[in-house]
Amino acid sequence: MSITRHDPGPLLSLAVEHGDTVYLAGIVAKNLKNDVRGQTEEVLAEIDRLLAKAGSGKSKILQAIIWVSDIRHRSAMNEVWTKWVDPKNLPGRACIEAKLADPAALVEIMVTASR
Amino acid sequence: MSITRHDPGPLLSLAVEHGDTVYLAGIVAKNLKNDVRGQTEEVLAEIDRLLAKAGSGKSKILQAIIWVSDIRHRSAMNEVWTKWVDPKNLPGRACIEAKLADPAALVEIMVTASR
Amino acid sequence: MSITRHDPGPLLSLAVEHGDTVYLAGIVAKNLKNDVRGQTEEVLAEIDRLLAKAGSGKSKILQAIIWVSDIRHRSAMNEVWTKWVDPKNLPGRACIEAKLADPAALVEIMVTASR
Repeated sequence: MSITRHDPGPLLSLAVEHGDTVYLAGIVAKNLKNDVRGQTEEVLAEIDRLLAKAGSGKSKILQAIIWVSDIRHRSAMNEVWTKWVDPKNLPGRACIEAKLADPAALVEIMVTASR
Repeated sequence: MSITRHDPGPLLSLAVEHGDTVYLAGIVAKNLKNDVRGQTEEVLAEIDRLLAKAGSGKSKILQAIIWVSDIRHRSAMNEVWTKWVDPKNLPGRACIEAKLADPAALVEIMVTASR
Repeated sequence: MSITRHDPGPLLSLAVEHGDTVYLAGIVAKNLKNDVRGQTEEVLAEIDRLLAKAGSGKSKILQAIIWVSDIRHRSAMNEVWTKWVDPKNLPGRACIEAKLADPAALVEIMVTASR
């Protein structure tokens, strides 16, 4: 089954197509001065961009893992999530707290999608 | 490849079929007054229910991520896990500590399975 | 779709083939007296062994989740990671902090790969 990799950096590719499945990296915001709402918006916009590049889209997400740096950020993140997702095509999801690579990053989201 | 979603709520679907693969959400117990054994039993019963709904079952689990709210809960969770899994068809698994959405939730399990 | 399981223990299998995809368990080092560099080297060597056994290899990794027991271990882990990965075939990746089963374990890596 063919593998196509997108946006490789020094450590990882941001998206990897494998047959009919797309695996994204854990995405964090670049503008880390924003609050959790702003960071979540930026993360989800980047996920939109990567899914489109890989022939997918948010209505085709299968599973998502969401890490928040403080579990109390979950409800603000969820407000942005709820506005963004396709309500008729919701993925499986887990949201847990974890310390992220950059202490200023408040949310990281990794999704697996169908192409 | 066709996508079938089960038990959608406001934020997520509890199970998503994609071709021959099933992606479940991270499952937590509803009865959060139980100890980690009781919560794990409830989580695994719910995983049984969701896998059956998606044409799968516990002998077809491929990978599991288990989050416990305190890593010291791991051995009690493992006792229940060991009784539940099909010993001839054990999945890949990772078990780590993480703070979960509800402070009373002691364990959350997310599995990927074959259909 | 056929399922082949490798290296089953009491709790989990270390690798599971499902059609063209391989799911590994979260791998930790056995020699826990080593520092994070040594432990990462051992984990990646074990991933090499398991991927080979399942008809895959590091150039076919699709997605990786890396848990470090202290996020400050990330840069030392990344040094070893960067030497190991195939720079032309980088996977999606997330790296977060989590308390692991054994307090002496400093890094745990779980990968999904193509066969």
